[in-house]
Amino acid sequence: MATESLTGTGVSPGAGYGPAYLMGAAVPEPPAGARHDGDVVAEVARVEAAVERVAAELQARGEAVGGDARDVLAAQALIARDPALAAEIGDLIDAGTAAERAVYEAFMRYNDILTQVGGYLGQRVADLADVRDRVIAELTGVPMPGLPAAGDKPYVLVARDLAPADTALLSKDIVAAFVTEEGGPTSHTAILARALGVPAVVACAGATSIANGVPVLVDGTTGLVGLMPSEDEVRATIKAARTRDAALAEVTGPGATADGRPVALLANIGGPRDLAAALEHGAEGVGLYRTEFLFLDRDQAPSEEEQEAAYREVVSAFPGRPVTVRVLDAGGDKPLGFLPPTEKEPNPALGQRGVRILRIFTDVLTGQLRALARAAEAGSAEVRVMAPMVATPEDAAWFVAACRAAGLRSAGIMIEVPAAALRATDLAPAVDFFSIGTNDLAQYTFAADREVGALTAFQDPWQPVLLDLVAMTASAGVPTAVCGEACSDPALSCVLAGLGVTALSMAAPAIPGVRAALARHTLAQCRAAAVAARAQTGPEAARAAARTHLPALADLGL
Amino acid sequence: MATESLTGTGVSPGAGYGPAYLMGAAVPEPPAGARHDGDVVAEVARVEAAVERVAAELQARGEAVGGDARDVLAAQALIARDPALAAEIGDLIDAGTAAERAVYEAFMRYNDILTQVGGYLGQRVADLADVRDRVIAELTGVPMPGLPAAGDKPYVLVARDLAPADTALLSKDIVAAFVTEEGGPTSHTAILARALGVPAVVACAGATSIANGVPVLVDGTTGLVGLMPSEDEVRATIKAARTRDAALAEVTGPGATADGRPVALLANIGGPRDLAAALEHGAEGVGLYRTEFLFLDRDQAPSEEEQEAAYREVVSAFPGRPVTVRVLDAGGDKPLGFLPPTEKEPNPALGQRGVRILRIFTDVLTGQLRALARAAEAGSAEVRVMAPMVATPEDAAWFVAACRAAGLRSAGIMIEVPAAALRATDLAPAVDFFSIGTNDLAQYTFAADREVGALTAFQDPWQPVLLDLVAMTASAGVPTAVCGEACSDPALSCVLAGLGVTALSMAAPAIPGVRAALARHTLAQCRAAAVAARAQTGPEAARAAARTHLPALADLGL
Repeated sequence: MATESLTGTGVSPGAGYGPAYLMGAAVPEPPAGARHDGDVVAEVARVEAAVERVAAELQARGEAVGGDARDVLAAQALIARDPALAAEIGDLIDAGTAAERAVYEAFMRYNDILTQVGGYLGQRVADLADVRDRVIAELTGVPMPGLPAAGDKPYVLVARDLAPADTALLSKDIVAAFVTEEGGPTSHTAILARALGVPAVVACAGATSIANGVPVLVDGTTGLVGLMPSEDEVRATIKAARTRDAALAEVTGPGATADGRPVALLANIGGPRDLAAALEHGAEGVGLYRTEFLFLDRDQAPSEEEQEAAYREVVSAFPGRPVTVRVLDAGGDKPLGFLPPTEKEPNPALGQRGVRILRIFTDVLTGQLRALARAAEAGSAEVRVMAPMVATPEDAAWFVAACRAAGLRSAGIMIEVPAAALRATDLAPAVDFFSIGTNDLAQYTFAADREVGALTAFQDPWQPVLLDLVAMTASAGVPTAVCGEACSDPALSCVLAGLGVTALSMAAPAIPGVRAALARHTLAQCRAAAVAARAQTGPEAARAAARTHLPALADLGL
Repeated sequence: MATESLTGTGVSPGAGYGPAYLMGAAVPEPPAGARHDGDVVAEVARVEAAVERVAAELQARGEAVGGDARDVLAAQALIARDPALAAEIGDLIDAGTAAERAVYEAFMRYNDILTQVGGYLGQRVADLADVRDRVIAELTGVPMPGLPAAGDKPYVLVARDLAPADTALLSKDIVAAFVTEEGGPTSHTAILARALGVPAVVACAGATSIANGVPVLVDGTTGLVGLMPSEDEVRATIKAARTRDAALAEVTGPGATADGRPVALLANIGGPRDLAAALEHGAEGVGLYRTEFLFLDRDQAPSEEEQEAAYREVVSAFPGRPVTVRVLDAGGDKPLGFLPPTEKEPNPALGQRGVRILRIFTDVLTGQLRALARAAEAGSAEVRVMAPMVATPEDAAWFVAACRAAGLRSAGIMIEVPAAALRATDLAPAVDFFSIGTNDLAQYTFAADREVGALTAFQDPWQPVLLDLVAMTASAGVPTAVCGEACSDPALSCVLAGLGVTALSMAAPAIPGVRAALARHTLAQCRAAAVAARAQTGPEAARAAARTHLPALADLGL
């Protein structure tokens, strides 16, 4: 038995074992009054080299990962290379201050300006401190904050919480499991872990007091985290996880309940690179193809030809199957330089994003739709196109008209704004399908930012009010998919089927568990589970009530 | 007849007449290469004096108005007084640059740093530009950007849109009416105009092309803006508005429908200074007492004694009547230094605000509740206390328990988060009353920031989905008030009564119109209007459908 164990919420199934690696050790402050040996030129050169290494590394990490993380890291690289900072550091070194202390003091001065101005300016202080610590670590030879380079064997990454910038270069070869003190089922950690197929436990109290290097056994299904487990225990846990995976893998074929009600099991993908995993796990098509990666970090939209090539690659992977493409979801936390909002946005998540910004920059949408139409003609996949952030019948009608004009046959909308779910019957006449984005829908329904760790409890997809909104949407007379993280939970996927949802789209590694859960329960059981869950007032009670109607989950180890 | 007229949305009733004053003339850039006459000391002194006058004026304007505007203006004063800027300006003057050009260049350098860093930092650039223009205007003697000082007679203020900082010192004596090109019924302009009792027309296309000084006649009821009207026309319009006001003033007594269903007509207040207007317009009590003004711009919460004194003043003004107090609504767009969120918030409106932050800083809430309980004991008003941003039954139960522990008899919650409205029946058992905040509720239901001008259409309180949420809330078995701007619209107030709302709280000048509208329609008419409005898919259609069931509105000129 492990000498000690902690418990959290398992958010990505499987077992992982390795030495703990704890993120976030602090870089010590260089002592005040530290002086260099008199060689100003050498000391300045030392700083310049350190700054350049840090900036280059931040930028390289950004390039390697792309997406939001890239922007964050590029901004940090800009800070590191700021000539005003270099001048200030030079002045301090001229006056005899040692390089690392000069860096510290110059950054603190910049820091003070930001803090004094306050507000958003003040909040950039954390980015500044990270750059400062990296430069000082370079100069003093202490370990760089953040992740270690890949070693001989995978480690268990332990952290308070993970941000995109922390996890840019991770893979299954490097990390055996994730354990975080904070976070919830839709936190960045959980989403990343499921996409990578790495076991993960979040909301694990005491995680950050695990000592660096201690062997840790993580069960991403039960949420148990064992410290210094015996060899037998490691072997047994990993074997049990493999047995379960094997049992799930035995259930094959299209998704359906035990009595034959079809529920299409689709994959969420971010681009052609995710196709292999989708096919490997038996996805019946693509339920959410996020097209942002094509548009990020550009001065203008990619050409129609370039887009068409990318779309063709996805379309050709699923002949005769649905490929559901979400058009560019810009704005919010994904600002694009060539689609600026018309004014300052104090709350980008509530701003000119999704279809709202596409209605301003119509050329960008038209180009994308044309490229999609050509890709659709070239393959035999059933291409479906949908718009994000639709809130009104007028938005829906506008988008569908744009799709028809481009020659696209199937046009739908994301349901992620509460008004759209509440008034799904008003939106239904205009569209061919709905796809519910449970993550954003929860964010707005609870007015609770999905990126704020302290508010992750509101992101629990078992919140009964979210089930109400799914029910309102699915009963509006239009085929309804769900493409949020909610679908990754086998029990919840049964509830969603019981609410009338006809397709579930998820990170591909979650498909086998969902397929098995559906195959072992009848539609009547799924409906009873949904009714029981909605009768509760909180998520834990909803989960427990639903499971009483889904007895085979326990047999499956789900 | 006026030589020309424009049409917008009337958002604050009454007629106003005066010369147009157009906000927003630009301060010209001082010519590049401008040199001073060689007296560095005098030139530096000139800058110092100008900066100090600008900073002092910004601060004074902030102090005079309080609230959000105060924080904005105080931050601008801090920027003006930044010693790093002063040093940069001094260096440029040393090198021979003329004062105004030195100011321009130093601010631009600071500006470039912010722009380079980008993101939120970059967005502060507008504040910086405003301070720069003010200092340059001081130095060069051109008119200060913003509003003119009060003249002989009131002017009609014309602008693209108004922000709190623009309108800090306005009053009815200075401004005859507002006309804005943008904005909607819950824009800052509309709220301010109703609070001041000044006529206003918003969303008025072409408004900003009205020439400065042109006589303008504004009808805040019909939304008509006449340019260069004849004397007869001015006299007739003002007379008609007065006649209507007189007719409305004849309807007195407690709010009720024609057939006697009581609907309490309450005032929204921000502090004791708003009591006179509430009493003057016959408010039956206070429906929303915002207590933030007591807490702003402090290092710590005010003492219980200080709070008690402020609460007593309000409580004693309404003996035997309801006084509904919203406890501190900190966070979001009202951050307080002594209640910091636990982490950076990319979207403060979706962050740790309202009850969420009070659950972290429980001492602040406990102190306020104790002060309220003592003020309640001292007077005979029926003190009701409510919490903002409640989303779950657990939040509600926690807050009510805190109120009971402090000895308060009536405890309720704001309904402004969609989850709370959707699951009002889950929240009802814990509380004594609900109060619906339609402005925030619309913001979250449409995921559309209420402060972003391009999204104001989503703030239309006639959106049928908002009426759905009011209906769900009002039918949960708990007395339900509405305290958003929606109540100021006489037609909509009838619809709200028809949905089962038992109290309406609004800016005091709106009370006579609402009282008259209710008094002329039966509850059955109000219900029919509500049903007709909810059967529509958009706000314009909802308004038109409701009005067909409310025939007396036209007779009343409403």
